[in-house]
Amino acid sequence: MAEEWIKVKIADLFDVVVKVFKELGVPEEDAGIIADVLIAADRRGISSHGVARLRRYVNGIKQGVMMAKTEITYVKETPVSLVVDGGGGMGQVVAYRTMEKCIKKARENFICLATIRNSNHYGIAGYYSMMALKEGLIGISMTNAAPLVIPTFGKDAVLGTNPISVAVPANEERPYVLDMATSTVPRGKLEVYNRMGKKIPLMWATDENGIPTDDPARVLKNLLERRGGGLLPLGGAEELTGGHKGYGLALLVDIFSGVFSSGAWGTDVYGKKGQPANVCHFLGAISPEAFVGLEEISSNMDNIIRMLKNAPKAPGKDRIYIHGEKEFEKEEENTEEVPLYYKVYQDIKEICSDLGLEFKL
Amino acid sequence: MAEEWIKVKIADLFDVVVKVFKELGVPEEDAGIIADVLIAADRRGISSHGVARLRRYVNGIKQGVMMAKTEITYVKETPVSLVVDGGGGMGQVVAYRTMEKCIKKARENFICLATIRNSNHYGIAGYYSMMALKEGLIGISMTNAAPLVIPTFGKDAVLGTNPISVAVPANEERPYVLDMATSTVPRGKLEVYNRMGKKIPLMWATDENGIPTDDPARVLKNLLERRGGGLLPLGGAEELTGGHKGYGLALLVDIFSGVFSSGAWGTDVYGKKGQPANVCHFLGAISPEAFVGLEEISSNMDNIIRMLKNAPKAPGKDRIYIHGEKEFEKEEENTEEVPLYYKVYQDIKEICSDLGLEFKL
Repeated sequence: MAEEWIKVKIADLFDVVVKVFKELGVPEEDAGIIADVLIAADRRGISSHGVARLRRYVNGIKQGVMMAKTEITYVKETPVSLVVDGGGGMGQVVAYRTMEKCIKKARENFICLATIRNSNHYGIAGYYSMMALKEGLIGISMTNAAPLVIPTFGKDAVLGTNPISVAVPANEERPYVLDMATSTVPRGKLEVYNRMGKKIPLMWATDENGIPTDDPARVLKNLLERRGGGLLPLGGAEELTGGHKGYGLALLVDIFSGVFSSGAWGTDVYGKKGQPANVCHFLGAISPEAFVGLEEISSNMDNIIRMLKNAPKAPGKDRIYIHGEKEFEKEEENTEEVPLYYKVYQDIKEICSDLGLEFKL
Repeated sequence: MAEEWIKVKIADLFDVVVKVFKELGVPEEDAGIIADVLIAADRRGISSHGVARLRRYVNGIKQGVMMAKTEITYVKETPVSLVVDGGGGMGQVVAYRTMEKCIKKARENFICLATIRNSNHYGIAGYYSMMALKEGLIGISMTNAAPLVIPTFGKDAVLGTNPISVAVPANEERPYVLDMATSTVPRGKLEVYNRMGKKIPLMWATDENGIPTDDPARVLKNLLERRGGGLLPLGGAEELTGGHKGYGLALLVDIFSGVFSSGAWGTDVYGKKGQPANVCHFLGAISPEAFVGLEEISSNMDNIIRMLKNAPKAPGKDRIYIHGEKEFEKEEENTEEVPLYYKVYQDIKEICSDLGLEFKL
């Protein structure tokens, strides 16, 4: 198993990814943003959202459904809000630039909330909420996504895995970084179980008839062929286990992202083959000075985090985690190098070869 | 079963509740606010949060841990935010007045977010988010609560059921009103199963050793005696079923309510017997004009709601619900009268008798 992962130098990986995007017509600065977002996911142990996705972005640009040159339009601007049109550009660049502007505005006017239409897959939601942390602000990031999730009592996937991320600075403790799909699990988790030949819990997905199933291959095939069924919202298929709550959160994300921006929602995201996906995001930055201030808030955060970490543990458990903690620990492990799954490594090599680029990893 | 519920006139119930609070020293206008919030819950079919709770408020005031005269202090105010101290007053009055101010400020400055400390149990979270709807605004409401919920891998209850409510106006369709505890179920649900002698699903709660249990009586007893165990977050006990996400949302609510206001969080809410509970809330109003505007947003809302309602149904299901829909239908049934559980009816009668008040229901 160990040899299935290849350790590569982060600096080299960054160069390769930047070169690939530049070759496809992405401006150098934008290519750097995309590379940083992707590699941040690999460093944080979220390899499903890292450079493993390079192929999809390459294909998107080649097929003309993602614009290599990202042109952002501010459709509407108030002192505390933005409506942004991403022009079908690269999701990472749209979200990064918008978050930069949110941060600037939140510093001036305490709060800035932005709803964004006509963008693309932006990588890990937590990247953008964490941008606010570096400035001592509170960050919010959500996005809608391809329809893979079943609403409660529904048969077909009509909502995305629609993640929510919120980041709040602490002082001596690590910050709180919630970054969660509103489905029980993302699709990548079914792919992992499928590869290992393992059954999945019945809370995860339904078959093409809308019945919970333990067979990941069946679900993945159905989703690909749009034959019905899909991922279950957090809480599963039943109201009894709270499935309507996960569904409600997925809908919330679609409303804040797609509805507030007059972009796309539900089955209209990635709705037309060969057309831009119209992925929509919602980003926000809030200054602690809107409330009791950074000093008090970050010290309060230390206290609530310690209260949780020191609470009695369940049998067989020796640790209570704070959200983001596992990812920060991974990141601290991966300062110089990052592990790539051998298939991902091969894929990047192939992408370089196709583009006539030197591959040195 | 049917005779266990007694239908009473809403106008009469309102008068009785107002009289009770006035007798305890609550100003008439405030008593009217509390009565309206409580009866709104009964009308919407959330009887666990309705006048069934009258006894607790009466006791709270009598014991001096809730102030009959609610004196609100605006500790900090920016054009788009508030830090509020509820002075240990009535939760409904604190939240109602703060939301009124949020709405006014959101109309002037697009957004207002308020964090509130030193309040009390405020009833249903959705009451305050829905106040924004009447003004064509988007409403947000959350509150922390008594520690009943286990963090993932924990053994004891250290977080509240911490509900989140978000309300968004639609046009021809009913508005979206999410109003969800971040635990799989609230404590009231265990009480119902216990009364019926039914076992509970293993996703709901753990025993005093931190092991999921199907025995509601055991959980309720443990919670009362603080012997360990408690309610499970949305997603259950395991990361495999997404329990860390429900825990993350409960923590989010505590951060926005308790941490941002320098109030109380975790086990410090209701932490000292005989002392004010220091319940903390977070409220917000956002103008649709911060984004693409009310006309577009409410029409987009109609579209996303119809997309969901028209989606194919799972076997044996004939309807996909939008959040708030069941409660709006109940409310439309209960325009003149509202059903009270006979024990609640008896309890109100007793409260009146104890206070020397005429009881006419």
